[in-house]
Amino acid sequence: MSKGLPKRSEDYSLWYNELVKKAGLAENSAVRGCMVIKPYGYAIWEKMQRVLDDMFKATGHENAYFPLFVPKSLFEAEEQNAEGFAKECAVVTHYRLQTDPDKAGKLRVDPNARLEEELIVRPTSEAVIWNTYKNWIQSYRDLPLLINQWANVVRWEMRTRLFLRTAEFLWQEGHTAHATAEEAIAETEQMLEVYATFAEQYLALPVIRGLKTPNERFAGALETYCIEGLMQDGKALQAGTSHFLGQNFAKAFDVKYATKDGGLEHVWGTSWGVSTRLMGALVMAHSDDEGLVLPPKLAPIQVVIVPIYKGEEQLAQISEKVNQLKRELLAKGISVKFDDRDTERPGFKFAEWELKGVPVRIAIGARDLENGTAEVARRDTKEKSTQQFATLADYIPALLDEIQENIYSKALNYREEHTTKVDSYEEFKQVLETKGGFILAHWDGTPETEERIKEETKATIRCIALNTPEEDGVDMVTGKPSKRRVYFAKAY
Amino acid sequence: MSKGLPKRSEDYSLWYNELVKKAGLAENSAVRGCMVIKPYGYAIWEKMQRVLDDMFKATGHENAYFPLFVPKSLFEAEEQNAEGFAKECAVVTHYRLQTDPDKAGKLRVDPNARLEEELIVRPTSEAVIWNTYKNWIQSYRDLPLLINQWANVVRWEMRTRLFLRTAEFLWQEGHTAHATAEEAIAETEQMLEVYATFAEQYLALPVIRGLKTPNERFAGALETYCIEGLMQDGKALQAGTSHFLGQNFAKAFDVKYATKDGGLEHVWGTSWGVSTRLMGALVMAHSDDEGLVLPPKLAPIQVVIVPIYKGEEQLAQISEKVNQLKRELLAKGISVKFDDRDTERPGFKFAEWELKGVPVRIAIGARDLENGTAEVARRDTKEKSTQQFATLADYIPALLDEIQENIYSKALNYREEHTTKVDSYEEFKQVLETKGGFILAHWDGTPETEERIKEETKATIRCIALNTPEEDGVDMVTGKPSKRRVYFAKAY
Repeated sequence: MSKGLPKRSEDYSLWYNELVKKAGLAENSAVRGCMVIKPYGYAIWEKMQRVLDDMFKATGHENAYFPLFVPKSLFEAEEQNAEGFAKECAVVTHYRLQTDPDKAGKLRVDPNARLEEELIVRPTSEAVIWNTYKNWIQSYRDLPLLINQWANVVRWEMRTRLFLRTAEFLWQEGHTAHATAEEAIAETEQMLEVYATFAEQYLALPVIRGLKTPNERFAGALETYCIEGLMQDGKALQAGTSHFLGQNFAKAFDVKYATKDGGLEHVWGTSWGVSTRLMGALVMAHSDDEGLVLPPKLAPIQVVIVPIYKGEEQLAQISEKVNQLKRELLAKGISVKFDDRDTERPGFKFAEWELKGVPVRIAIGARDLENGTAEVARRDTKEKSTQQFATLADYIPALLDEIQENIYSKALNYREEHTTKVDSYEEFKQVLETKGGFILAHWDGTPETEERIKEETKATIRCIALNTPEEDGVDMVTGKPSKRRVYFAKAY
Repeated sequence: MSKGLPKRSEDYSLWYNELVKKAGLAENSAVRGCMVIKPYGYAIWEKMQRVLDDMFKATGHENAYFPLFVPKSLFEAEEQNAEGFAKECAVVTHYRLQTDPDKAGKLRVDPNARLEEELIVRPTSEAVIWNTYKNWIQSYRDLPLLINQWANVVRWEMRTRLFLRTAEFLWQEGHTAHATAEEAIAETEQMLEVYATFAEQYLALPVIRGLKTPNERFAGALETYCIEGLMQDGKALQAGTSHFLGQNFAKAFDVKYATKDGGLEHVWGTSWGVSTRLMGALVMAHSDDEGLVLPPKLAPIQVVIVPIYKGEEQLAQISEKVNQLKRELLAKGISVKFDDRDTERPGFKFAEWELKGVPVRIAIGARDLENGTAEVARRDTKEKSTQQFATLADYIPALLDEIQENIYSKALNYREEHTTKVDSYEEFKQVLETKGGFILAHWDGTPETEERIKEETKATIRCIALNTPEEDGVDMVTGKPSKRRVYFAKAY
């Protein structure tokens, strides 16, 4: 197959879009800003969901489902949150269509079916969930309340990109309530660590764990924690956030609990989420000019086997050996596809599976049959080797682990090479233009300076990393004193 | 705990609503007609999803995700479908809110952010999916296209009931495209059989497999297949539908494929779905005045163990034995909860787990410790027996199978006792009023007679069962000839 994929070095943005479409992950739909997630892309998302869901349950959370719509009066209740999302809300105003009297065969909104109160399509569910929690929480015995929801949300975006920024996206949103601020903060930090573990161990994406500046906080939160990864074009991508909500939502929705000693207190809240944006991170962090490079732990197909044969008899001989191997690998939990299509040549198949990022490709031909061998090709390094067929059932699982690790190491090396300490604004701008990546610089802690740097360079403070040692310094722009370097980058 | 549950015999409808709420399955939300699915209810839904999803994949289907919104012009394209759903559509007309200039702290729809084209919140996704298929299908090599989607949909209902009829509900919708009518019909029938198998083997609900009359067909389908179950109040419930769409959507959206011999043909379609309505069926088919009765295969907790102890030392002894048993049962894939809360008495716990329908309850007290025994109680028959503790790890799995089977048999017996052949309209009305259930009667095949019976008795034709033998007879109302009895019932 001809991939027709642009090179990353020539047009990274176009490469990304074309790759997402050509590899069968997603495409634009007829609905402005909304995407269709295609079967191969959805299969990866399902793997992500399964792993994350297990991690949420292992930390004591349960799933539930809350309404898609938020009545305007509820949406308004927490003011900061409402203000933060008001500009990007899809609003349902009517509940019926009727035949258009002026246009044959067409429908129009029925003017007599206007809702008394408009419904907002949820951009996030704090309002509708906290309004429910009011009835679920009476006493300290009801706490902590640890709930997660898998859902679609809508945020009206003017400029959209597949997976990274779409009007509708899929996500999970955790919403928890606690008796004390300390417990809520511990939950916020725990879930950040769950996300970081997922990113590093499954996405193979090293991430910086940190706090957002007040400017970049979730609307309605007292503190927003985040994980930030670095893409191959030197831009950062926020891969997950976990918010300490304080008592903001508890107060807005009057959620109180009877304490052990007979008092009545507002509860403390958190919320945390990751979305189909992770699909974008996965693509941009690892893939190359030939196509996707999927970490084995998230690859829907981990091993593809391509027979190279002349005639039915050879195919039958190869198939017999392959089916045996397939059974052995499946028994070890490895997903294998035997691509015995007779409509395509091996070269076409190689290119197709390369494009789709299958971690390991095995090819078996007539000579291999004679020699008891097979050719094993890694997607990540493109290395090929000849292996004894009889040892493959042991060799492949170890190879998949090695590939998972190698993809992570490569991303980590890239990040380390693209993390620069700078002490002057000149150097900052120069590094940003030439090399990109994360820039560690001192900041005076004011929103004004942050804003100025953003306007002048398009770089934002990605986070104040957790557990960074104090270091006396001066803000590179204002010269004011600073206690700590923060992470700057241009970002998605 | 005091359950405060009404009796089925007194008010079946109230019993259902209260049970759904008190057992923690779902509750009404602040959003008109929309429900909150609570963690225990959602856990059952997740089990249903997992089983169905595996069945779909085993029959060659892949999951994908399509937009929540349908632009009006797409929605209109297949006229019958549009007409069928127009009266229950939620419509998005605006994409932004703004501060209300007249009311401090309030928001209003921004009059300058009106959409050029209204967006319908999907009541079903044929339109948006077939519009996509147009680009996915070019040649016979692209067929069959076998896709499923798990999603939320919205149908504006004036009178709603938890799970059975809600404005928003969760479902899966399969949408397939085929080269020939025969293949599409085979797919439609295959998926009906998947649903019937799921209903019978997992929900423990015997179902009639049949065809809907033209009146009751899905809007835009040439044929609608359905499965119909019988609830304990003698009313029928449609538990799943599978539609043969013919070429209606292919023509509306211009989906053609190049045939092997160089022709160009419209493809043939199917769609099929089951929803959170199945939760309602599950509750109404099996539960009793004490609470839920869950079939073991769908119960989130299959076994609950309640210790009966005085003092820490006894609890420690019991816990040690229980933890060993728990490990053994978990290894066999059985979910076990050890309810060692020290805040509630055993009687309270018994009542709570009864309400929640846990299939098996094990109680262990001081005398059991001495004797090496345990008390085992079945939720379905309420039988209790004393068992040797050492044999429980073998006894329990067999017992769960027996319970699953017994719940099914009980429902099947009920259905058989409540299926009546009648030959006169008088008898029909009398059976309907006194006994309810399915009534097998001759029908002349006209929509007029069907409509008249519906108006006069509220009973509808549930289906024309598949594989029923021909039988000469006359319509009980009109006296016109009939070749076959059909299933009538009052229905949810």
